[in-house]
Amino acid sequence: MTVAMLLEHGFEDSEVLDTRALLQRAGLTVVLVAPFAGREYRGKKGATVFSDAAAGKVDAGEFAAVIVPGGHAPDKMRMRHAMVDLVRDAVRAGIPVAAICHGPQLLISADVLRGRTVTCWPSIAIDVKNAGGAYVDRPVVEDGAVITSRKPADIPAFVDAILGAVESAKIG
Amino acid sequence: MTVAMLLEHGFEDSEVLDTRALLQRAGLTVVLVAPFAGREYRGKKGATVFSDAAAGKVDAGEFAAVIVPGGHAPDKMRMRHAMVDLVRDAVRAGIPVAAICHGPQLLISADVLRGRTVTCWPSIAIDVKNAGGAYVDRPVVEDGAVITSRKPADIPAFVDAILGAVESAKIG
Repeated sequence: MTVAMLLEHGFEDSEVLDTRALLQRAGLTVVLVAPFAGREYRGKKGATVFSDAAAGKVDAGEFAAVIVPGGHAPDKMRMRHAMVDLVRDAVRAGIPVAAICHGPQLLISADVLRGRTVTCWPSIAIDVKNAGGAYVDRPVVEDGAVITSRKPADIPAFVDAILGAVESAKIG
Repeated sequence: MTVAMLLEHGFEDSEVLDTRALLQRAGLTVVLVAPFAGREYRGKKGATVFSDAAAGKVDAGEFAAVIVPGGHAPDKMRMRHAMVDLVRDAVRAGIPVAAICHGPQLLISADVLRGRTVTCWPSIAIDVKNAGGAYVDRPVVEDGAVITSRKPADIPAFVDAILGAVESAKIG
């Protein structure tokens, strides 16, 4: 099974590297989807990774889940229409979308939070509420196909929830 | 006349340094107000400045204007209650509040954008709209005591608007 992890400059290093490592250890293939394929993207603490695919060239239906890491990257992702569309398409198709830290900023831009319970990094809780979401402060929150977490320390719970959702979708 | 410029780590360097220089050249005293007084704060491109005062120890009424630079700093400022309160108190007292780039994030947290026309860095335009603001894409927008700009290139227009508002308040 293949999942998409969205990538832009300034990502929270551990939220890409550790999350990817845990998903791979569980047997998933992780495709790094960025504005451009085959480019180097740099984390806020200096890690570098290469993108596998361009957001405009993939379809949400190719993936068992779409994962949005945090850091400064979501502020850039939300100005990329192809990334906003990918998240919106996934949510509409019932494909699990998992966002951590500042990742829910991209979900705000895709307008998929109305009526949903979510968590996030506390600085953007007001933006989540203004976008129609119900904010709670918990390590991981699942509301339908939308999974959210707050920060790097939540990564193990975040990954467990993603694996559970992907498994449910497969069985379903 | 004295104006407050709010400070946190990760500020957009030019929006602190160039804005401050232009305001000082016009004869204003610029007090750098941070979570803590006498500490070094670092810009996203590496500039360092020392804070003059702690947000919790000043009163909006001491200042002819309150200025909110952008970068990653407003994301941190909005988690500081004293900085959110300072902005809210200033707007309520009719003291000019000027925010550039990501600076309007702090105005969202202070809930002072409802019914106002504002501009900002485009990634947060949706957050401004969800907070009740009317977003426009212009170098500088003035709506009552709230002045907003989009990015470093707007600094000259931003400073002109601040100087005009401070002068009007003095005459008024």
